[in-house]
Amino acid sequence: MADQRFWPPRSFAALPPEYTDYERARVVVLPVPYDSTASGWVGSREGPDAIIEASENMELYDIGIGAEPYRVGIHTLPQVTPHAGGPQGMVERVEEIVGELLGDGKFVVTLGGEHTVAVGAARAHVRRLPGLSVLAFDAHADLRDSYMDTPYSHACTLRRILEVVLPEGRMLQVGLRSAEREEHDLIRERGLPFYSPQEYRRLGPQALAEQLGESVYVTIDLDAFDPSQVSAVGTPEPGGLLWDEVSELLETVTRLRRVVGFDVTELAPSLGPRANAQLAAKLTYRLIGLALRE
Amino acid sequence: MADQRFWPPRSFAALPPEYTDYERARVVVLPVPYDSTASGWVGSREGPDAIIEASENMELYDIGIGAEPYRVGIHTLPQVTPHAGGPQGMVERVEEIVGELLGDGKFVVTLGGEHTVAVGAARAHVRRLPGLSVLAFDAHADLRDSYMDTPYSHACTLRRILEVVLPEGRMLQVGLRSAEREEHDLIRERGLPFYSPQEYRRLGPQALAEQLGESVYVTIDLDAFDPSQVSAVGTPEPGGLLWDEVSELLETVTRLRRVVGFDVTELAPSLGPRANAQLAAKLTYRLIGLALRE
Amino acid sequence: MADQRFWPPRSFAALPPEYTDYERARVVVLPVPYDSTASGWVGSREGPDAIIEASENMELYDIGIGAEPYRVGIHTLPQVTPHAGGPQGMVERVEEIVGELLGDGKFVVTLGGEHTVAVGAARAHVRRLPGLSVLAFDAHADLRDSYMDTPYSHACTLRRILEVVLPEGRMLQVGLRSAEREEHDLIRERGLPFYSPQEYRRLGPQALAEQLGESVYVTIDLDAFDPSQVSAVGTPEPGGLLWDEVSELLETVTRLRRVVGFDVTELAPSLGPRANAQLAAKLTYRLIGLALRE
Amino acid sequence: MADQRFWPPRSFAALPPEYTDYERARVVVLPVPYDSTASGWVGSREGPDAIIEASENMELYDIGIGAEPYRVGIHTLPQVTPHAGGPQGMVERVEEIVGELLGDGKFVVTLGGEHTVAVGAARAHVRRLPGLSVLAFDAHADLRDSYMDTPYSHACTLRRILEVVLPEGRMLQVGLRSAEREEHDLIRERGLPFYSPQEYRRLGPQALAEQLGESVYVTIDLDAFDPSQVSAVGTPEPGGLLWDEVSELLETVTRLRRVVGFDVTELAPSLGPRANAQLAAKLTYRLIGLALRE
Amino acid sequence: MADQRFWPPRSFAALPPEYTDYERARVVVLPVPYDSTASGWVGSREGPDAIIEASENMELYDIGIGAEPYRVGIHTLPQVTPHAGGPQGMVERVEEIVGELLGDGKFVVTLGGEHTVAVGAARAHVRRLPGLSVLAFDAHADLRDSYMDTPYSHACTLRRILEVVLPEGRMLQVGLRSAEREEHDLIRERGLPFYSPQEYRRLGPQALAEQLGESVYVTIDLDAFDPSQVSAVGTPEPGGLLWDEVSELLETVTRLRRVVGFDVTELAPSLGPRANAQLAAKLTYRLIGLALRE
Amino acid sequence: MADQRFWPPRSFAALPPEYTDYERARVVVLPVPYDSTASGWVGSREGPDAIIEASENMELYDIGIGAEPYRVGIHTLPQVTPHAGGPQGMVERVEEIVGELLGDGKFVVTLGGEHTVAVGAARAHVRRLPGLSVLAFDAHADLRDSYMDTPYSHACTLRRILEVVLPEGRMLQVGLRSAEREEHDLIRERGLPFYSPQEYRRLGPQALAEQLGESVYVTIDLDAFDPSQVSAVGTPEPGGLLWDEVSELLETVTRLRRVVGFDVTELAPSLGPRANAQLAAKLTYRLIGLALRE
Repeated sequence: MADQRFWPPRSFAALPPEYTDYERARVVVLPVPYDSTASGWVGSREGPDAIIEASENMELYDIGIGAEPYRVGIHTLPQVTPHAGGPQGMVERVEEIVGELLGDGKFVVTLGGEHTVAVGAARAHVRRLPGLSVLAFDAHADLRDSYMDTPYSHACTLRRILEVVLPEGRMLQVGLRSAEREEHDLIRERGLPFYSPQEYRRLGPQALAEQLGESVYVTIDLDAFDPSQVSAVGTPEPGGLLWDEVSELLETVTRLRRVVGFDVTELAPSLGPRANAQLAAKLTYRLIGLALRE
Repeated sequence: MADQRFWPPRSFAALPPEYTDYERARVVVLPVPYDSTASGWVGSREGPDAIIEASENMELYDIGIGAEPYRVGIHTLPQVTPHAGGPQGMVERVEEIVGELLGDGKFVVTLGGEHTVAVGAARAHVRRLPGLSVLAFDAHADLRDSYMDTPYSHACTLRRILEVVLPEGRMLQVGLRSAEREEHDLIRERGLPFYSPQEYRRLGPQALAEQLGESVYVTIDLDAFDPSQVSAVGTPEPGGLLWDEVSELLETVTRLRRVVGFDVTELAPSLGPRANAQLAAKLTYRLIGLALRE
Repeated sequence: MADQRFWPPRSFAALPPEYTDYERARVVVLPVPYDSTASGWVGSREGPDAIIEASENMELYDIGIGAEPYRVGIHTLPQVTPHAGGPQGMVERVEEIVGELLGDGKFVVTLGGEHTVAVGAARAHVRRLPGLSVLAFDAHADLRDSYMDTPYSHACTLRRILEVVLPEGRMLQVGLRSAEREEHDLIRERGLPFYSPQEYRRLGPQALAEQLGESVYVTIDLDAFDPSQVSAVGTPEPGGLLWDEVSELLETVTRLRRVVGFDVTELAPSLGPRANAQLAAKLTYRLIGLALRE
Repeated sequence: MADQRFWPPRSFAALPPEYTDYERARVVVLPVPYDSTASGWVGSREGPDAIIEASENMELYDIGIGAEPYRVGIHTLPQVTPHAGGPQGMVERVEEIVGELLGDGKFVVTLGGEHTVAVGAARAHVRRLPGLSVLAFDAHADLRDSYMDTPYSHACTLRRILEVVLPEGRMLQVGLRSAEREEHDLIRERGLPFYSPQEYRRLGPQALAEQLGESVYVTIDLDAFDPSQVSAVGTPEPGGLLWDEVSELLETVTRLRRVVGFDVTELAPSLGPRANAQLAAKLTYRLIGLALRE
Repeated sequence: MADQRFWPPRSFAALPPEYTDYERARVVVLPVPYDSTASGWVGSREGPDAIIEASENMELYDIGIGAEPYRVGIHTLPQVTPHAGGPQGMVERVEEIVGELLGDGKFVVTLGGEHTVAVGAARAHVRRLPGLSVLAFDAHADLRDSYMDTPYSHACTLRRILEVVLPEGRMLQVGLRSAEREEHDLIRERGLPFYSPQEYRRLGPQALAEQLGESVYVTIDLDAFDPSQVSAVGTPEPGGLLWDEVSELLETVTRLRRVVGFDVTELAPSLGPRANAQLAAKLTYRLIGLALRE
Repeated sequence: MADQRFWPPRSFAALPPEYTDYERARVVVLPVPYDSTASGWVGSREGPDAIIEASENMELYDIGIGAEPYRVGIHTLPQVTPHAGGPQGMVERVEEIVGELLGDGKFVVTLGGEHTVAVGAARAHVRRLPGLSVLAFDAHADLRDSYMDTPYSHACTLRRILEVVLPEGRMLQVGLRSAEREEHDLIRERGLPFYSPQEYRRLGPQALAEQLGESVYVTIDLDAFDPSQVSAVGTPEPGGLLWDEVSELLETVTRLRRVVGFDVTELAPSLGPRANAQLAAKLTYRLIGLALRE
């Protein structure tokens, strides 16, 4: 219904229908309202809805990058039904759906939900592109082998992704400022490229981007941001990354490498101001624009 | 997308696609996120969204009336774009859209937004059905001729509706417990059938329903309810109607008369618990079921 | 400033200036934002402000009693500065101010703050009118002799008031449903007329009112209400009084006896919906109307 | 630490240490902060903590039943660690722990968390007492065989309990006002004693209690209450039971039968006012007092 | 009432009466609780009240500028009654009132409400001082010619102001990071001095201030700030200005030019922490102090 | 109960029992839920609980300092019972308890509650260690001699501490950006080392630390932080310290001097996002680690 008297039907960025048709859209947004393994404060199941609602307030022109990302077409799927039987079922469901979307040639943007859903999304990408690099934004190491009786906890996310990325590909993490001793030992022993905000500031975006392979999947746990930018996450940690830093890094990575998909996770909207959802929406939109610019 | 792995796209009651097609649906839900004339506490613009979100948690079978209202088909339109130029423009927009929907033979359910939007909806119905009766649920008289510089204030709603209903039709109000002296004088002088909760309890649903003509439009300002049932309204008044009372009255009216359309307005979700949106959703669904039962 | 382009300056009921002049006003509203002895959840210091803000949404005509209470004139004082040195100092300050207002011939309405402030207000009234009866609305016995190291705790309010009321006057309480064993023993041993909601329903308003002396001070701890009517109190208790019950009792008492002053206390607005402040405002306004009707 | 300068360590009802020792306590409170299968609004994982915090504001004497329930001793366990691998693991964990506590001769009070945790608690009781009756308070039928890919969803709770109760025992439900058509058919075909609030009012507490066997386990989903009493639940339904009704039914059942254990579930504190946690605490305390009175 | 036992009556900065008399006060604060054209999240109608309430917590001495701004006298008007008939009526009302205040020789501080109210305030200033410069703080271009059916939308604010400022005066904007393509084109084609935070950092306060004419009106949409400083706005945008930056710019501008009036708009207090209102209050107070320092 | 199926009983950092035994623990955490003199927004009585709850989400390994602070043992006391008779009684209670704990050789960490409680804690330390230096983090001077009728107001905290520190010891303050003129005059006349954030940035951590004596007590009013880091305080002030700055200063002070105890006060959790409690918990844990590192 393109009637001016109505707002466009709910979809990411509130696009008019000519940009949301599945067949013609280059990008597919997949909302995954799942937070069953949350161990801190809960509520990221409401994240996808909040991000999409906030995205309706964005200008379609992104003045920061001088582009109109929506022009490639963005189709927003209905929310994935949570698998209440346990996180393994959920991860497999996400992997299967993302796999089908990649099979249709789509650029897939997964909106969490807890970070666990990234395991399914990342796996689907790696299966199609062995040797893929992964760039992870996170405040936590997420390298536990199992947590609260499951290997598919949000606290194990990067461990699970690392398992499928290696040995052909590589995984970088940025934003690190919280880890168990065992996780920290693992990082040091194996020399994993996990960077704290301070280390990232010393290293700079270019040097970091150059460590990545040709094709890159980006997984964003929003707690990588400083809580002054995003407090609405289940396990906030002081001392994180700022908007301009993340923005610059994404600009650099997309310029030097090819980003083939990404996810934005862990927004629990009731834990902070609505401005956090607005940041998540703009981040998502900008990364679409950067990844798919000509 | 009827894929079981996805929840149905956002629509009232989260219906599967076979029940939401515009052509086949008997009912059309029209969300009107407008609250620009609010004089108390604001936020009813978020009402339609909250009601539709809450409706996704309802069972499709309404055990209270032993029916499955959705089987007649319910199409949910995108939200009407507010007319920021003033309430008169907004009322006219709603009237025009509802008129078109009635022209398509639809049963229209308008979700507010402030009560003012009911003026447009009621007018459209009266224009097609001169002599129509109106049953209004409201805590307030809403009979001011003008308020805060406009005749289209939420405080003038029933005055505006009365003007188009008379002289062929009639308007009853139930739930009254707040009025200016001038409004109260008008009610007494003209013998308007406006009933307080206590008066309604003495009168009973049958006697009230029998005062209505054959065809009835129902307009519901949720502040007619007691604040213990709905506190999330801009101008709550203690001493209102209970769920069972409203439910019984609607059951009686729909049994004895023909309800041709209705609206549910004034839910400002941030002012009370989410249970209020759930009540509004269930009320909407039940009234669909009652009005269109065979 | 009676300019129609401005709302009247903040005062109870948002009255125009001709009804708020101190000299001509029969009623004085005294806001006491004090909650320092709160032992449950805190926040009644924000009560006076919330009640006054809510009162600006009321109609000036109270349809429930067919009166315009504001016509006697209502002057709203600035908020009393809390005495941070301890509750004894605060009680004495309230007593002194209320005493001065009574000396000016005013009908004083004290808005709490915690129930403790009623000790000062009630004392000032009793000092001028020995033999005065007190009607207390409360969920709790409030008969402790001391609590958390002070005899001026909110948990000792009725004990302190009882001490000044006796032996000439008497004190009735209604709404009781929570007490220590020692308090309950005291009630039974001394035959104090403290009534639970169930006992009040059996007794009825007339019989209760007739137990009171000619002149009556009314102290209202809003937790006497059922939490479905007022949840925004520090120590809510299920099973309380309903709006219509309290309203009928006040109507009866003011008809049969002379109410010489009252207080409304314990609203902690952040603990419940705004509708609670609306109820408190309407209750205050109605009791002014009932107490001062001709 | 019995030092008067300190509040007692956090435990249900904030009891002094002489009443909380595990060995001597007759009652054990088991907090289960689990809500992973929630399909409506989430947050019941915060329920146990909120109930225990609210219980610290209660008087230890329950004036409504004239008893001091704490005198039998109440030990509060630390929170059960959620099993993040899926609800089956969680149910089994609860069953195992409750079984051990029953083995120690304790009267077990389980605080949810979602209603699913009652499956484990009820099972443990039935295993020790074959033929046990179950009295369930619930707004929903909870009779689905599976939901969102698991038979251990909150929507299947009463189905799972029914399976272990039958054929020796029986299960009654009260509060019903929401069900799928399939659930409603099942209730009618098999003549299950599931009662709506209206049916319960007609039946009365005595007649209902007499349908129960000698020993009774009580499972309380707080959404059985009317949302005016408890709105802080994931799937509120208008038209529920009132505090006095539930209180009277529990009084009757405990007088005529022997209650051997119970659970209180589904409080999601962030969804409503704190008064809801207070009701849940008082309900828990009163049922302890009623079940174990001499 | 200068009685120490009372807090001063509500007024900006809670000044004692000797500093608030209209005749002697140099500054007049005009609260405009209007947000009817809000398109994002609503609530700025509660902004003026929140700012004034927060201002009561400020020290009267501003240590950051070493001054006591209140000494010039600050009179706080009652809130302007919203014109519910549409934004044009509201803008005209503000323009008229501000015009009268300027006629009385007052320094006018307008507190929004949405940014639209600045159109009226700015116009009144320009009419008295043709050639006036305007310094606008804003995250958005606000240069649309019409939006949601009205030229008086908050999205058109700077376009409307520009129309009256030109050609004699000039308008600078700082904080820009969101615009439509058409707005961005307009900025580039006409070389409008609109600066993003990054551009402002490169430019510096002195160079920017020197672009302004002798007399300057300052209009502040609080979304110019980074959401880490102010998240309680309807359309927050990441990447904004920090407190120290805004403070320094205002210090520079008031030192090099003459600021003749200003507004602070768009605070929607329920969307963020109370600290945001505190910032807005301190900003208002500091700018009074800077503009009127000797 | 070291059973893996249970979370450890509530204590700071949720430590397993082997690290929480009073006798063996080097550190004692003392929660003081007191906020009776609050003059701005209230709620710091809920601070200790919120900090302890948040601390349960921390990793026990602090990657930022490469240490496991819990290994020295941390015993968490029950909450101190507030003294409702006035702040003097409360300060004396805290002083007495802290004195006893110091007598047992403990390192005491006091969690407020309002800053006033620091007076008791600091006094107890000074009494045992005459000549002790105090390092105060605060946005305000807190140098009033009396406020709201008591010398024990939160606005007098540093004045009271200064009185016991002098003349043997010295007190430094950092974070200053709000003061009365009289306070500012006092600072200048007596040359008190009170530093604004800007002054601290110029001075640097080393120079500041070197002004301190050998042994240092640290008192932290969380409003020293910028509101972007901590907004949940009663009197937030823009322009404060950042996490990295505070962290670096504490690292430096503990390296160059001996910190003998500290307090963290003024968190009012309901006034901001939960991330604020997380920061307070991490700050507390890190300072334990820094102060007691070998």
